[in-house]
Amino acid sequence: MRLFLRPVKKHASAPVGIFDSGIGGLTVAHAIQQQLPHENLIYFGDTAHLPYGDKSEAAIQAYSIKIADVLLKHGCKVIVIACNSASSAAYELLKEYVRHEAHIINVIDPMVEFIATHFAGKTIGLIGTKRTVQSGVYPRRLELCHAQVTLKPLATPLLAPMIEEGFFNNQISHEIIQQYLSDETLAGIEALVLACTHYPLIQQEINHYYQGAVPLLDSAATVARALQQYLQQHQLLAPAATPRHQFFVSDYTDSFEAATQLFFKKQIRLNHYPLWN
Amino acid sequence: MRLFLRPVKKHASAPVGIFDSGIGGLTVAHAIQQQLPHENLIYFGDTAHLPYGDKSEAAIQAYSIKIADVLLKHGCKVIVIACNSASSAAYELLKEYVRHEAHIINVIDPMVEFIATHFAGKTIGLIGTKRTVQSGVYPRRLELCHAQVTLKPLATPLLAPMIEEGFFNNQISHEIIQQYLSDETLAGIEALVLACTHYPLIQQEINHYYQGAVPLLDSAATVARALQQYLQQHQLLAPAATPRHQFFVSDYTDSFEAATQLFFKKQIRLNHYPLWN
Repeated sequence: MRLFLRPVKKHASAPVGIFDSGIGGLTVAHAIQQQLPHENLIYFGDTAHLPYGDKSEAAIQAYSIKIADVLLKHGCKVIVIACNSASSAAYELLKEYVRHEAHIINVIDPMVEFIATHFAGKTIGLIGTKRTVQSGVYPRRLELCHAQVTLKPLATPLLAPMIEEGFFNNQISHEIIQQYLSDETLAGIEALVLACTHYPLIQQEINHYYQGAVPLLDSAATVARALQQYLQQHQLLAPAATPRHQFFVSDYTDSFEAATQLFFKKQIRLNHYPLWN
Repeated sequence: MRLFLRPVKKHASAPVGIFDSGIGGLTVAHAIQQQLPHENLIYFGDTAHLPYGDKSEAAIQAYSIKIADVLLKHGCKVIVIACNSASSAAYELLKEYVRHEAHIINVIDPMVEFIATHFAGKTIGLIGTKRTVQSGVYPRRLELCHAQVTLKPLATPLLAPMIEEGFFNNQISHEIIQQYLSDETLAGIEALVLACTHYPLIQQEINHYYQGAVPLLDSAATVARALQQYLQQHQLLAPAATPRHQFFVSDYTDSFEAATQLFFKKQIRLNHYPLWN
């Protein structure tokens, strides 16, 4: 029970917490590290429950609370929800739960703002997990911006497991991507939101499908910029120093560790940190 | 803590417990229902942690213990581990944990016995999850039978998510199946073990690839026969009566419920039963 906590003074050298259902959110962690090279980072991948895309809202909310507890225990000044499914299911809850202890950034709002600014009046496609698409969070938030964007969302549930199993830039991934993108839902779109943190890994193939004619909107860089903006505005940017990066997972296997290379562009050591017991 | 329990007298009308990481094990439940139409069945799908194929051995062991507790609480006379990953990771542990309270049947041993009896001296392929293949449980158990079978195991991790997402009997599933089966590991095999309870749904496509020339060994029917044999030998066959079938899942979503049709051949109602809390 954490009731009646007073606002905690956050420190610039405190770490930035980042979490995802697995290791896909490392694409966001990588973008943050590129954009903000002095920040200390703590990454939590809930590999015991991955993938979130098929799980219920209540389950994702419970997992997110458990993970937030871990990140708060490590004194994080900001928590970045580096997963669209968790952002759609648990952002409001986490804001309420964490209150003044840390600032919460999700992967959806920065993208919605970006779309509203740059694509007003356009028809935009969106691909993501079942959870993200069924939640209707993107169209709802876009409507609040009065940006007159026509959003065409399509659930593409096989893409994340396909990428995690190492199927990309090959015959099979071409087939699967083509099958999804040729769905009539996406006909005539003027840009495509990649609403899953795994998808940067197939950006090139999607570009190839559209022959470069459809801009691809990937949230990793957008989220990193939103984080930078928040830290600047609140004088919370880490001082220049060699940062510490820590990586936790709720279930450890060698193949998770091997796959970090794909998402973080370099091999990292994962520490096992069970969420229950 | 359940220490020093005395052997419990099992009753013929007690239910048969069946569990899997998700709903794939319903193919086994279906085979059992066909073979033993009077048995009361309790099915537990650990949808909060699905898929098991990528999870660590320790994680799968912990989940299996939690599920066994649920099934024992419901008085099951037998627990069928309807999942190859869980059978390879947790069978020995469950036998030790459950002791005399229930008999444990896994999906591996009946298949190993079948292979040893019918395919001695042959070269047999095997496809399954990373967990099942990396565990080496099939070759180890086969060696104990001195059947001189040459086993060629190949991890095919994309097949289970592919099937769960409804990709079968189409262009994409043909491509993925062909890509896997044309792997040189499987060259020259004389039969193929489908070592994952999802794979009966793509049996026809695999058959098509081999043009019917390679027998496909599916564990569902084999396990149902092993169960029947055990119940007969121990006078535990359920008396003729209308049986009760109950289905529990650790996480509930509409799409899980919708997908039960694929695996159990009819729509069933899933009851939510969280493993923790």
